[in-house]
Amino acid sequence: MWADLTPIGRDGRSGGYRRFAWTREDAALREWFAGEASARRLDVTLDRAGNQWAWHGDPDARPGVVIGSHLDSVPDGGAFDGPLGVVSGFAALDVLRAAGTPPARPIGVVNFGDEEGARFGVACAGSRLLTGGLAPDRARALTDADGTTYAEAMHASGIAPDHLGRDDEAVRRIATYVELHVEQGRGLTDLDRPVAVGSAIRPHGRWRIDLPGEANHAGTTLLGDRRDAVLAAAEVVLAARAAAQRHNALATCGKVQVEPNGVNAIASHVRVWLDARAVTDEQVHAVVADVRAAAATLGGTLTQESWSDATAFADAHRVAALLDDAPVLDTGAGHDAGILAAAGIPALMLFVRNPTGVSHSPAEHAERDDCLAGVDALTTVVASLAR
Amino acid sequence: MWADLTPIGRDGRSGGYRRFAWTREDAALREWFAGEASARRLDVTLDRAGNQWAWHGDPDARPGVVIGSHLDSVPDGGAFDGPLGVVSGFAALDVLRAAGTPPARPIGVVNFGDEEGARFGVACAGSRLLTGGLAPDRARALTDADGTTYAEAMHASGIAPDHLGRDDEAVRRIATYVELHVEQGRGLTDLDRPVAVGSAIRPHGRWRIDLPGEANHAGTTLLGDRRDAVLAAAEVVLAARAAAQRHNALATCGKVQVEPNGVNAIASHVRVWLDARAVTDEQVHAVVADVRAAAATLGGTLTQESWSDATAFADAHRVAALLDDAPVLDTGAGHDAGILAAAGIPALMLFVRNPTGVSHSPAEHAERDDCLAGVDALTTVVASLAR
Repeated sequence: MWADLTPIGRDGRSGGYRRFAWTREDAALREWFAGEASARRLDVTLDRAGNQWAWHGDPDARPGVVIGSHLDSVPDGGAFDGPLGVVSGFAALDVLRAAGTPPARPIGVVNFGDEEGARFGVACAGSRLLTGGLAPDRARALTDADGTTYAEAMHASGIAPDHLGRDDEAVRRIATYVELHVEQGRGLTDLDRPVAVGSAIRPHGRWRIDLPGEANHAGTTLLGDRRDAVLAAAEVVLAARAAAQRHNALATCGKVQVEPNGVNAIASHVRVWLDARAVTDEQVHAVVADVRAAAATLGGTLTQESWSDATAFADAHRVAALLDDAPVLDTGAGHDAGILAAAGIPALMLFVRNPTGVSHSPAEHAERDDCLAGVDALTTVVASLAR
Repeated sequence: MWADLTPIGRDGRSGGYRRFAWTREDAALREWFAGEASARRLDVTLDRAGNQWAWHGDPDARPGVVIGSHLDSVPDGGAFDGPLGVVSGFAALDVLRAAGTPPARPIGVVNFGDEEGARFGVACAGSRLLTGGLAPDRARALTDADGTTYAEAMHASGIAPDHLGRDDEAVRRIATYVELHVEQGRGLTDLDRPVAVGSAIRPHGRWRIDLPGEANHAGTTLLGDRRDAVLAAAEVVLAARAAAQRHNALATCGKVQVEPNGVNAIASHVRVWLDARAVTDEQVHAVVADVRAAAATLGGTLTQESWSDATAFADAHRVAALLDDAPVLDTGAGHDAGILAAAGIPALMLFVRNPTGVSHSPAEHAERDDCLAGVDALTTVVASLAR
């Protein structure tokens, strides 16, 4: 499975991945998912948001256990973030089917679309649409950097965007959702363990910061006459870091767009995106308030693009007991499991050790033995839930 | 003439222009130039760099007076920077031809290619190639943001890049080059005069600043574990402004590229371009040394992409006397006239009033009466030189 997946959307130079929602690469990934399902004689169904489901057994007769993750990536992302959960889902299903005693509940594998939000700015768009957390009109109107809307991109991929909206039928089929994911930190490495159970997702959100300037000639405009949006952006970026330190939170400005972006033209507008996370909502709000104040003194504004409340996974300690008392860790990263849990759908997460802790980078890695330990743990958990 | 030119490469939203070298827009501009020449029964010749020349009279018999400028633009640039000089060149030629007494010297109109360097990073590429200031191998290897080389782009426009190199034949034809240009400051507005004579171009250069970071997940990487290239860029941008203030110079960071440029990914690399100018070389070098030191503390490097020495236009005061004692102004902007003067070719500049002083912006403007006064002045100067 893994070998068929690795070439899709891979950058030959960096080794990183560019797998964005509703692109050619995404279509190849969805085709891969359909092929894996077909090889197991499973039908693939799409929910109203276009997420792919492969069910073993009839989830309309009795809600089932769903295993999965996503196949898309951030720009220049790693191979494991997302695909490891989907591949492990199919692998765990294979083990359970080969075991002879058929599980009492149906088992499904899911590929949630557009988890990273790399193209349209909203993370976990597929699971937010499924659960009704993202309004269909807002989703359809989201635009990428080229001005293509989410609706247009979905349509171009052959899926009608008219049906977007909470999908009660698809939601009803889920008894529990289990998402295995490569760890995005060094928790397991420090503990010298291969697999952990997720206890919670910390609150996090994204804001677009718009900073106005005034276009002018770099060679003739006196410093005192300038309104340089790049200078404003520099101040806001440093203010965001200082606010994160002050409130013991994380703040990142990873995306910047400069207009007109000419060497000899003073910038007329800069957009900087802020990603802010912390243990509590209050800490995140404090960071955002400080950044908003810094931007306001420069004529700038903040617009919230997404927000995810803190989410706890209820059964984490019980599940850890099933897995030789695996460590229980929370995470600052958002996941579809968090979106489902916030919508009242029982959800769980497993994390697989990442030796360096690096993620969202071509350097992201998990050892083969740890991945196999992940599949074992997933199989144990799903078998227990499907009993 | 002006009406045919205005729609080419115009952005419907901002009203600004995107006319980059060796693009479809550039081809339309070159076709416009050929059409204007043809309407006057002038042949268009190309020099080895692909610059367009329309000669009235035989410059191989006796060197002539050349009037012109460029037709390309910065991203989201104004309508006047460049085209005003070419249009005024044709207009002045029309007046001189209509005057009855044919000038003793031939008169040429020129369109220099890629003056802004917006696509390949080297300003005045056409005139630098003509005079040998830009080595052909270096020019051919320049790449745009998509990785297309200068040679490939030129070839795609139907012009062989094999012949690049100083063009002695084309240079010998020039007795004097006269470039009329919209002023890029408020000098004439403050003096309440429509036209000035250029005395000098201040020294200026461009540097690419490379700042390394380490890609990682924005939601899970502790602040202390980060190497965030966007933070480094923010510090360098502020250091450049501080250095410019310290040395009474101009420094601008107008172009920024972030990799991978994802909202939830810590940046692995940022490139920021520095444009630095001042009255003296020493001031510019002092700014660059300060910025280099700031970048070095963050692991960054500076690479010079272009450099233009201070250039004086020898006959400025004599020409000003011809024009009712027009004001004599120097400028911080680079021009093809400066490249030619630095190569020992007699060159002159005229500036036309710009009410706001804004340039490299859709807000760039010159009043019709001032443009006509510019054509009058140009006609007077060329008539005197061609006598």
